[in-house]
Amino acid sequence: MKNAVGREIPEYIEGYGKVRPFMGAFANYGVRERASVRLRSVKPGEQKLLASIDEVVDKVNLKDGMTVSFHHHLRNGDYVLNLVMAAIAKRGLKDIHVAATGIFPIHEPLVEYMKKGIVTGISVNYISPGPVAKAITQGYLKNPARFMSHGGRPRAIESGDLHIDVAFIAAPEADAYGNINGVNGPAACGTLSYAIADSIYADKVVAVTDNLSPYPACPIDITQDFVDYVVVVDSIGDPNGIVSGTTKVTKDPVGLRIAKIAAQAIDAAGYIKNEMSFQTGAGGTSLAVAAEVRKIMKEKGVVGSFAAGGVTGYIVDMLNDGLFRNIFDVQCFDLKAVASYRDNPRHQAMSGSLYGNPHDKGAIVNNLDVMILGATEIDLDFNVNVVTGSDGTIMGASGGHNDTAAGAKLAMVVTNLTKGRLPVVKEKVTTVTTPGETIDVLVTERGIAVNPRRQDIQEKLVAAGLPVKSIEELKETAEKMTGKPEPIEFTDKIVAVVEYRDGTVIDVVRQPK
Amino acid sequence: MKNAVGREIPEYIEGYGKVRPFMGAFANYGVRERASVRLRSVKPGEQKLLASIDEVVDKVNLKDGMTVSFHHHLRNGDYVLNLVMAAIAKRGLKDIHVAATGIFPIHEPLVEYMKKGIVTGISVNYISPGPVAKAITQGYLKNPARFMSHGGRPRAIESGDLHIDVAFIAAPEADAYGNINGVNGPAACGTLSYAIADSIYADKVVAVTDNLSPYPACPIDITQDFVDYVVVVDSIGDPNGIVSGTTKVTKDPVGLRIAKIAAQAIDAAGYIKNEMSFQTGAGGTSLAVAAEVRKIMKEKGVVGSFAAGGVTGYIVDMLNDGLFRNIFDVQCFDLKAVASYRDNPRHQAMSGSLYGNPHDKGAIVNNLDVMILGATEIDLDFNVNVVTGSDGTIMGASGGHNDTAAGAKLAMVVTNLTKGRLPVVKEKVTTVTTPGETIDVLVTERGIAVNPRRQDIQEKLVAAGLPVKSIEELKETAEKMTGKPEPIEFTDKIVAVVEYRDGTVIDVVRQPK
Repeated sequence: MKNAVGREIPEYIEGYGKVRPFMGAFANYGVRERASVRLRSVKPGEQKLLASIDEVVDKVNLKDGMTVSFHHHLRNGDYVLNLVMAAIAKRGLKDIHVAATGIFPIHEPLVEYMKKGIVTGISVNYISPGPVAKAITQGYLKNPARFMSHGGRPRAIESGDLHIDVAFIAAPEADAYGNINGVNGPAACGTLSYAIADSIYADKVVAVTDNLSPYPACPIDITQDFVDYVVVVDSIGDPNGIVSGTTKVTKDPVGLRIAKIAAQAIDAAGYIKNEMSFQTGAGGTSLAVAAEVRKIMKEKGVVGSFAAGGVTGYIVDMLNDGLFRNIFDVQCFDLKAVASYRDNPRHQAMSGSLYGNPHDKGAIVNNLDVMILGATEIDLDFNVNVVTGSDGTIMGASGGHNDTAAGAKLAMVVTNLTKGRLPVVKEKVTTVTTPGETIDVLVTERGIAVNPRRQDIQEKLVAAGLPVKSIEELKETAEKMTGKPEPIEFTDKIVAVVEYRDGTVIDVVRQPK
Repeated sequence: MKNAVGREIPEYIEGYGKVRPFMGAFANYGVRERASVRLRSVKPGEQKLLASIDEVVDKVNLKDGMTVSFHHHLRNGDYVLNLVMAAIAKRGLKDIHVAATGIFPIHEPLVEYMKKGIVTGISVNYISPGPVAKAITQGYLKNPARFMSHGGRPRAIESGDLHIDVAFIAAPEADAYGNINGVNGPAACGTLSYAIADSIYADKVVAVTDNLSPYPACPIDITQDFVDYVVVVDSIGDPNGIVSGTTKVTKDPVGLRIAKIAAQAIDAAGYIKNEMSFQTGAGGTSLAVAAEVRKIMKEKGVVGSFAAGGVTGYIVDMLNDGLFRNIFDVQCFDLKAVASYRDNPRHQAMSGSLYGNPHDKGAIVNNLDVMILGATEIDLDFNVNVVTGSDGTIMGASGGHNDTAAGAKLAMVVTNLTKGRLPVVKEKVTTVTTPGETIDVLVTERGIAVNPRRQDIQEKLVAAGLPVKSIEELKETAEKMTGKPEPIEFTDKIVAVVEYRDGTVIDVVRQPK
């Protein structure tokens, strides 16, 4: 069957199940249900502290076929997933489904577990280019990987679509009764937002810490009433890997030019004004847009309501400069953000669900004015791909891409027009992550394309003398520079299913030939 | 049938339903389930702000027989319950069940609604002596009132035992999209802890505010993803009524003497030491115990882990003096507590569930060392009554009484031996609120009685030369002073059902003759 972005999708996918096709970004609202939760109540006097991960695996009664979950605030410094999976592998367990919010190169041991059938399923909302992504592309995982968004994952957990048997929560600070925070300790990472749904809905919740504090470990991000067990390990993560790699404004002149045009476009479209809200990623060009927006905000004396997102020190500076009243933080990208979250009550955590879940009573993304997005590819319908690279290899997952695009009044993609000698604008993207109906503007160094749905913006940008072109023109310009790329060829094997934030299937990834 | 505290309870109570008899304070643990929740998801662009309570009543589709809920952080200053119930009464709705966390004299209009059949059910965990309590005693409510504890109510809500159709949340500060806090505005009341379960589990959640702020209203106690509608009214409460009446150390010499003995007993029993945790109520004698404990802590140089409870400025001072590292706060009793909660991250809110729910993964009460409790009556089995007065009139409900008693290592009742020329120690209490198995020590001005289950404490107090007597001796002493009181006579009509924190029925209140 064809879904609403024109993708041919099977009705049933082996190892995934029945497919609910994507019907449109706003087609799937209405009455929803949060699932019931089973838990074992804890009597006064009972203890929760266990001696080792091995004891945990016993206590939680881990079995073949179960789903274990992890959060990725420790990013490429995370030791917890590997520690737990090593203990599981040692037991000879099979057919484990790893539901991780993010997977990084450090998680390479998963590749071996995939080959051995220890891990047969992976659900993930962010994945870095690296060995695991490559192994999924190559078909080593028995079942197709399930790619979600940051809001789609808590939606799936809360609705019961994704049932977690045991959640393992990397805890930079914990006490022996399960109060947890992310702001203190050698592996401090800031908010623990992606782990919130896991802590509420998993059958069993285990805090894994290297920093056991006297009771109560305050401030508390996850409270004891949601935690079954606590275990202490030598180290939960490497601070060098916890800080995200790309949290500085770019110095590349092309990136800077794109950022300048982007900020001018945001201003011309009327979004730089008091009470504005803003989110950008941690990439160099995205931060360069923030730098340009900051300049204009200062010139105009604008005070915004909030900045959201994965938060860098750069955004913290904007808060401290009075350019925003508040920050909503789902993930701290650097130690300045961690400290700000710890010390400044105007820097608030938001759970993954509060951030982007389409099926709650209104996520923060619904209140976003301006969202700056990246893209691996974008097509003539403004559909965006952030999942697969030009050779069909898996390079990422939605993260908050399709959540914020759906919510923001101005969802703006900023990208070089060509990357690695290939055009970014294509007739059809290899994989749809984010539907074009939720993308308003594309900004490149060679011009701006406005989604025809947004004539209002088109008119304002033209009036402001900005270099507005059609997206077809940008595609031609790109192809003149690079030539028309050869289409990638794929086998029939589906290696990943790309879910839209509402749980419908927006695309599948097939194994490249 | 007889329950585990020897009370004769019907198997079925008209207007209440099938009775689960109390089986013992720790009989009812194990695997439990949190109920599923239905909600209407909110699309980007939808608004939540409504113009009036009347519009709210329309929007939430309020009907005969529904359950509406309220929280009592505004105490005897609360206007919200009355505003909402007046709108409901105006509609001619019938058979409404009011599930309020607390009822105060200001809620007197409920009496008229009870008489008219507009309100036919009341569930409550705290009730002040006053017109509503009296009217329930007199049998004006069609169905028996359901008395719960502060932990029992969220347990009931989470398990589905108590289903709320519409929760009305008095919000000292809110934004138009439903983010709420209790720390800013003319009716600032501090934490909103008792309303947390309502906000998560009610079918519809309405924030009622007199202080609408620009988005986002930070800090946030209840986030927008749990709120359906926001409505602005002129005033949600009278600040004079919000501050609790009794938040000063007593000046009564008998109370002071009791406090001194109590503190000596706590010390002799070995509970004044580093890492100790402590909770006391806001009454004059309870605070006097805190004052004496504080002295000993200072003398000994003790640093406790946390103080919990309804919090007064007095407890805040102990935090600021370094006597405790943290506060867990379910209710701020005065403005000093409100300011401390707002400004000091070591002063943490706890939901009602985190505070005392026996069926979660470990409530804060489980970590309490010392709990100072009041009593209307206590009997030879150490069962405590805080529900009915000496004439059978309803005077209160458990509040946190039976939650903290069950959790604390040392649950100590402090009381004058006689009150209003009646003995406090009786053969059998009129109504059991808290089972004797969870009460360790009774302290009066005429001596201390230790529960025979706690020989360890008995020995320590005797060794310390404290005036330890048997509870029978204290009863005789009291009766010598007052004479033996005439038994109260009751009709067969059950006017209230007293639930233990686990939802079993520990007693019923019958209408006095």
